[in-house]
Amino acid sequence: MTSAELFQKIKQKQSFLCIGLDSDPNKIPSHLKTENDPVFEFNKQIIDATHTYAVAYKPNIAFYESQGVNGWLSLQKTLDYIRKVDQDLFVIADAKRGDIGNTSRMYARTFFESMDFDAVTVAPYMGKDSVGPFLEYNNKWVIMLALTSNPGADDFQFLQDSNSTDRLFEKVLKKGVEWGSIDEMMFVAGATRAEMLTDLRKIVPHHFLLVPGVGAQGGSLQEVSKYGMNSQCGLLVNSSRGIIFADNGNDFAKVAGEKAEEIQKEMAEILQEKNLL
Amino acid sequence: MTSAELFQKIKQKQSFLCIGLDSDPNKIPSHLKTENDPVFEFNKQIIDATHTYAVAYKPNIAFYESQGVNGWLSLQKTLDYIRKVDQDLFVIADAKRGDIGNTSRMYARTFFESMDFDAVTVAPYMGKDSVGPFLEYNNKWVIMLALTSNPGADDFQFLQDSNSTDRLFEKVLKKGVEWGSIDEMMFVAGATRAEMLTDLRKIVPHHFLLVPGVGAQGGSLQEVSKYGMNSQCGLLVNSSRGIIFADNGNDFAKVAGEKAEEIQKEMAEILQEKNLL
Repeated sequence: MTSAELFQKIKQKQSFLCIGLDSDPNKIPSHLKTENDPVFEFNKQIIDATHTYAVAYKPNIAFYESQGVNGWLSLQKTLDYIRKVDQDLFVIADAKRGDIGNTSRMYARTFFESMDFDAVTVAPYMGKDSVGPFLEYNNKWVIMLALTSNPGADDFQFLQDSNSTDRLFEKVLKKGVEWGSIDEMMFVAGATRAEMLTDLRKIVPHHFLLVPGVGAQGGSLQEVSKYGMNSQCGLLVNSSRGIIFADNGNDFAKVAGEKAEEIQKEMAEILQEKNLL
Repeated sequence: MTSAELFQKIKQKQSFLCIGLDSDPNKIPSHLKTENDPVFEFNKQIIDATHTYAVAYKPNIAFYESQGVNGWLSLQKTLDYIRKVDQDLFVIADAKRGDIGNTSRMYARTFFESMDFDAVTVAPYMGKDSVGPFLEYNNKWVIMLALTSNPGADDFQFLQDSNSTDRLFEKVLKKGVEWGSIDEMMFVAGATRAEMLTDLRKIVPHHFLLVPGVGAQGGSLQEVSKYGMNSQCGLLVNSSRGIIFADNGNDFAKVAGEKAEEIQKEMAEILQEKNLL
């Protein structure tokens, strides 16, 4: 999928919502626990209830990996199910991988060959040869961490380079623009620092941003859109816990659908205001 | 295992060798490919031939993950086998994980609960709350990336902070020392930059360093020991491809054993010269 195609999907669905499938087995409704594969059953019902409001899903790999072999099976079934429901949905493996070249090549194989994700999140610390192997695939995307939504972002990401006065996250963005075009590279930019998106947009005016942190982590959709949106929308705003764990009773999927619809409606208004529909 | 206990093992075996199990299914000897689980069979024979010369093993998770469910099964069997052969071997999940707190907690569960690794490698980019959950386990270790052995290390790790004049890797080390004691935190320091170990040791005189890059990547054991060793050895030097893929015929394990012994003998001499035996 190119960035132009992604923008088409956004206009069509009037939504730039990405739903994070952080499907913690300890948090899924108890009535699902007798199912053969409770995590998949949970995801399936969530997807059924929400897919008309979303353009992307983002399984958080940690939550599957922690369940061992069964978790990987749940993940594969979830990916297959998303493809079956709507093959134009953009599916992100939120894996935060990154290693020396020959090892990153293996991680790329995991998510782009063994499984058929559209994108994988990658940590930048090890530099170009740790990111490159993910970019060798056609029609696949790297989503590189730049400015994250968590408190620990302050520890290193704002370190200011004495030569260029760039902060680390800005340096990451500049390198990222060199390494990957707008059709293969996005950047993670946390919603909890919405006002910072102005600074990011100076460096990456055209790339898509994946924005986590709306909802449970406290970020605001209005603020994110105000500072981060570009002429092709340029945003995928993620919500995980705020949608999938909005309710943990028998109606969990219905409530998740309502939450997703609520966000989608707000997104439609924003897109309209910006004359992007 | 405490750092003192690890030093005891090093003295006992006269070795500070860590063997990297980067067991690429495409590179293992062809006569093993008819085995039920070729990767495990490969690892088993490598472990049998090398364990007397090593204090640690480091499966590179990417190579297992890329094989899907079968890969995770091979990994678990490999870990179990190492424990069976010698339960005092230190086993590192080379996974380079790291995410927001609730997600890092899941990754920690994978490697410290679902599987019983002694240590996991962690990427520092997302800061304290991405590392903290791995440190909540007793007798388990975080090995945080500081200065890596690959060319891409130059992209960000040497960025110099305009406030403190620390370079990024130095800032990572300083934070790491705050976050984890010498009995729960190590740092990755690439052998390809051996002379830099002097700078690292100014900040982390007492912590163990995991040093990749000797062998295939070009680092020198003598140089690493000269600049990086402390009074408790303080080094785990890793070799992967240089040992496990030294030969790909019927004698691969025997040759791997010889390579490991060669390195161990050199390590014994170094330990002797430094009066550490």
